[in-house]
Amino acid sequence: MSQKTCQQTRTISERIIFDKDLNDKQTLFGGKTLSLLDENAGLASFKFVKGKIATAGYDHINFWKPITTDKFIKMESFVTGVYHRQVEVFTKVISHDIQTDQTEIAFTSFCTLIVLKSNDKIEIPTIIPETNEEKYLCQGFEKRLKQRKTEFLQKDEFLGHLTID
Amino acid sequence: MSQKTCQQTRTISERIIFDKDLNDKQTLFGGKTLSLLDENAGLASFKFVKGKIATAGYDHINFWKPITTDKFIKMESFVTGVYHRQVEVFTKVISHDIQTDQTEIAFTSFCTLIVLKSNDKIEIPTIIPETNEEKYLCQGFEKRLKQRKTEFLQKDEFLGHLTID
Amino acid sequence: MSQKTCQQTRTISERIIFDKDLNDKQTLFGGKTLSLLDENAGLASFKFVKGKIATAGYDHINFWKPITTDKFIKMESFVTGVYHRQVEVFTKVISHDIQTDQTEIAFTSFCTLIVLKSNDKIEIPTIIPETNEEKYLCQGFEKRLKQRKTEFLQKDEFLGHLTID
Amino acid sequence: MSQKTCQQTRTISERIIFDKDLNDKQTLFGGKTLSLLDENAGLASFKFVKGKIATAGYDHINFWKPITTDKFIKMESFVTGVYHRQVEVFTKVISHDIQTDQTEIAFTSFCTLIVLKSNDKIEIPTIIPETNEEKYLCQGFEKRLKQRKTEFLQKDEFLGHLTID
Amino acid sequence: MSQKTCQQTRTISERIIFDKDLNDKQTLFGGKTLSLLDENAGLASFKFVKGKIATAGYDHINFWKPITTDKFIKMESFVTGVYHRQVEVFTKVISHDIQTDQTEIAFTSFCTLIVLKSNDKIEIPTIIPETNEEKYLCQGFEKRLKQRKTEFLQKDEFLGHLTID
Amino acid sequence: MSQKTCQQTRTISERIIFDKDLNDKQTLFGGKTLSLLDENAGLASFKFVKGKIATAGYDHINFWKPITTDKFIKMESFVTGVYHRQVEVFTKVISHDIQTDQTEIAFTSFCTLIVLKSNDKIEIPTIIPETNEEKYLCQGFEKRLKQRKTEFLQKDEFLGHLTID
Repeated sequence: MSQKTCQQTRTISERIIFDKDLNDKQTLFGGKTLSLLDENAGLASFKFVKGKIATAGYDHINFWKPITTDKFIKMESFVTGVYHRQVEVFTKVISHDIQTDQTEIAFTSFCTLIVLKSNDKIEIPTIIPETNEEKYLCQGFEKRLKQRKTEFLQKDEFLGHLTID
Repeated sequence: MSQKTCQQTRTISERIIFDKDLNDKQTLFGGKTLSLLDENAGLASFKFVKGKIATAGYDHINFWKPITTDKFIKMESFVTGVYHRQVEVFTKVISHDIQTDQTEIAFTSFCTLIVLKSNDKIEIPTIIPETNEEKYLCQGFEKRLKQRKTEFLQKDEFLGHLTID
Repeated sequence: MSQKTCQQTRTISERIIFDKDLNDKQTLFGGKTLSLLDENAGLASFKFVKGKIATAGYDHINFWKPITTDKFIKMESFVTGVYHRQVEVFTKVISHDIQTDQTEIAFTSFCTLIVLKSNDKIEIPTIIPETNEEKYLCQGFEKRLKQRKTEFLQKDEFLGHLTID
Repeated sequence: MSQKTCQQTRTISERIIFDKDLNDKQTLFGGKTLSLLDENAGLASFKFVKGKIATAGYDHINFWKPITTDKFIKMESFVTGVYHRQVEVFTKVISHDIQTDQTEIAFTSFCTLIVLKSNDKIEIPTIIPETNEEKYLCQGFEKRLKQRKTEFLQKDEFLGHLTID
Repeated sequence: MSQKTCQQTRTISERIIFDKDLNDKQTLFGGKTLSLLDENAGLASFKFVKGKIATAGYDHINFWKPITTDKFIKMESFVTGVYHRQVEVFTKVISHDIQTDQTEIAFTSFCTLIVLKSNDKIEIPTIIPETNEEKYLCQGFEKRLKQRKTEFLQKDEFLGHLTID
Repeated sequence: MSQKTCQQTRTISERIIFDKDLNDKQTLFGGKTLSLLDENAGLASFKFVKGKIATAGYDHINFWKPITTDKFIKMESFVTGVYHRQVEVFTKVISHDIQTDQTEIAFTSFCTLIVLKSNDKIEIPTIIPETNEEKYLCQGFEKRLKQRKTEFLQKDEFLGHLTID
């Protein structure tokens, strides 16, 4: 059975903050972060498994600190868990103050992606954490998976209460 | 104390799916949905309270069904809970097949927004559900709020494990 | 012969105004409104008739009031007339001041779309107005159609005077 | 009293058609044309008068021929009439088939712009047509102006029938 | 052997500068200029030869003067040299101050494009300069071509020093 | 006198290739690469010196290999030379085939940026290469600087031959 390290799936995107991406509080528009997030997390999953993959959901999306134009950001994603055809990708955004060189965690999230069934013959590797950060995040996978299963069991009940017109 | 109904905060955006918004599975790029989501949920909160509001986080983001170009979508957001300066906004995306007129829930999420402290004198209304869907979603607020509090208590422990360079 | 109500074709898009969409007068760039317009009016026609439809023209496009960032907008389109393969869609933009809750009509237009000939077997319904606004707009269709016919008769004369290099 | 020729206000934008700008008929999305239109017509008015100018409306917008990716386009705008603080700008789009070198008029429109009152001391020139095409278009200004006045007289009656919630 | 004049390949794009295109120095973002550049230079090459053409490189890209929002720009490209399947396109950006009518050269560059081999049967014309500017630029082609050949000879040595992981 | 290593200025952006960014050869549109380039190179310079910096020019821009949608790219920029207020940033794009894991250099360029005079009190560090690649690129700086000086001496002669209307 093949293996990949978290490091092998690590995907990085560093960005300047443009005025056009600011909201009325002069901080980075949340929708811009979410749009970059989905691209970056998706690329981490592409590095992990060769085959069509679709985003199934996000949880634990937290905007910890506002991002302003005197900062640049480093978005970093890597795989932190695998269960059958489910792949979990963690993403963090580190903001970096250009004047003070101070860095802080501005945003984190976990994304669940599904390897599509048409890819059944494709081998899905196991994921190997190496650093302390990777080990901590991979250890938490089982608990997060359990939460998602609990939520998934309530799917029909939940959707059944929603109107669709 | 003032009140607003869910209906008074309801925000709607109907959209055609363009080819340029498709991913390699020929379905709507997740990042596009997330970007529209943040704008629509934000507008629902603006209808609820007059004052600066910032997105704090998202949870329960689920892409239930893929969205393709033979469909149009209706994105609908409304406030489903208030606690101190926290406002929760629910968003669903209904996809509509142009040929068969079949509709389905393609996406749901809950967003938490914070009324900024500079707005302390601004009164935050209570939210009044009227329809069955609104009542069901507002009833679940307490449970979701509790989950968020639990997660928030782990914030320092969680962030403490992440590297910031 | 099938029928559809104006309401069945109604298409809504609510939007926050972003700084990036402002012109040098700090009001919403006209081209942004026109771009949203074509998408929204097109979707109203898709709800009306199943088949390929192309925009043929616009008339009576009026920017009644400037739209600024302290407002959000509600764009609303619905079918207001049908003649052979021509479908007329009315669109209005209501701007809503976030602080004062004052609303005003900021923009209106009529769009003419053509159901493509390849769709000959597709039945084109008649349109049924229900509200006073719908009845008023549908009553004016015949007069607007006549103006368009007059203009169309001058098409060759008009285009004949234009250079094409 | 100062004068400017149509030629002095002429504004040109040549463009390749990208796949991302195509609609479901594989022709240029109308909203894209309209967005380019407003920018190009606006620039023609900036060349004509130094001062803040706002788009008031469009009429006679006609999509004469579909534009496809095997063509490039030349959008051309120039001033064709002035009345008090109103400036009329004509725009045409010529499409050019890359393989056959065949050109055709794909789109035309007339835009009315208003020189803002804050610019009262700014002199508004008269417009001087030189070519046959310019003379033909400028001759038609009086008739189009009359149509707009007629429509403007019905403004209150028209807007009075529209709902604004 | 067929011929085309520089004038026959001339491609023009005039643009207003939007706030959203400005960088932190309140001047036009370089990346925006470069993106417009590639589209405009490409269109000049499409006017010159019927067939698939790919951008091979740029040299002598100079941002001579900053471009601000009180200016509009005129981007102008035309073919200035041909050698086998290589086509050189020159592009200049003239900025025009709206208040003072002062114009200056803000940007120039030379682009090299390659007519793809699949187009072998396509005849590539010679280029004929007519104005003094065209003659000056076409005269310099031989020298620039020589520089590019020199650089190309160092290609393997250069790329051999770069890491590719 | 302060120092920074090339590594301290290294800026990375990894990207999926979207269909909307493809040209008519189904390869990444050059203008998209150039737009990303300017953002990434700019960020590398921001990491190097605290102060306003403007792009002065580019040279040696080479599109070595076409980039297609079955690949992802890694764009990497770092400072490779400093002379008075001039900072040189090298950028390479490595494309990575998702199926075969084959990587290749798809694009390289050198950008010259100028630290603005208003920043005179800001100390500009020297740049320290560490790896073989960094040493090779920094060694070539003197030669490239000389070429730029030669070109700059011809600036007035060159611009004097260009028309500005």
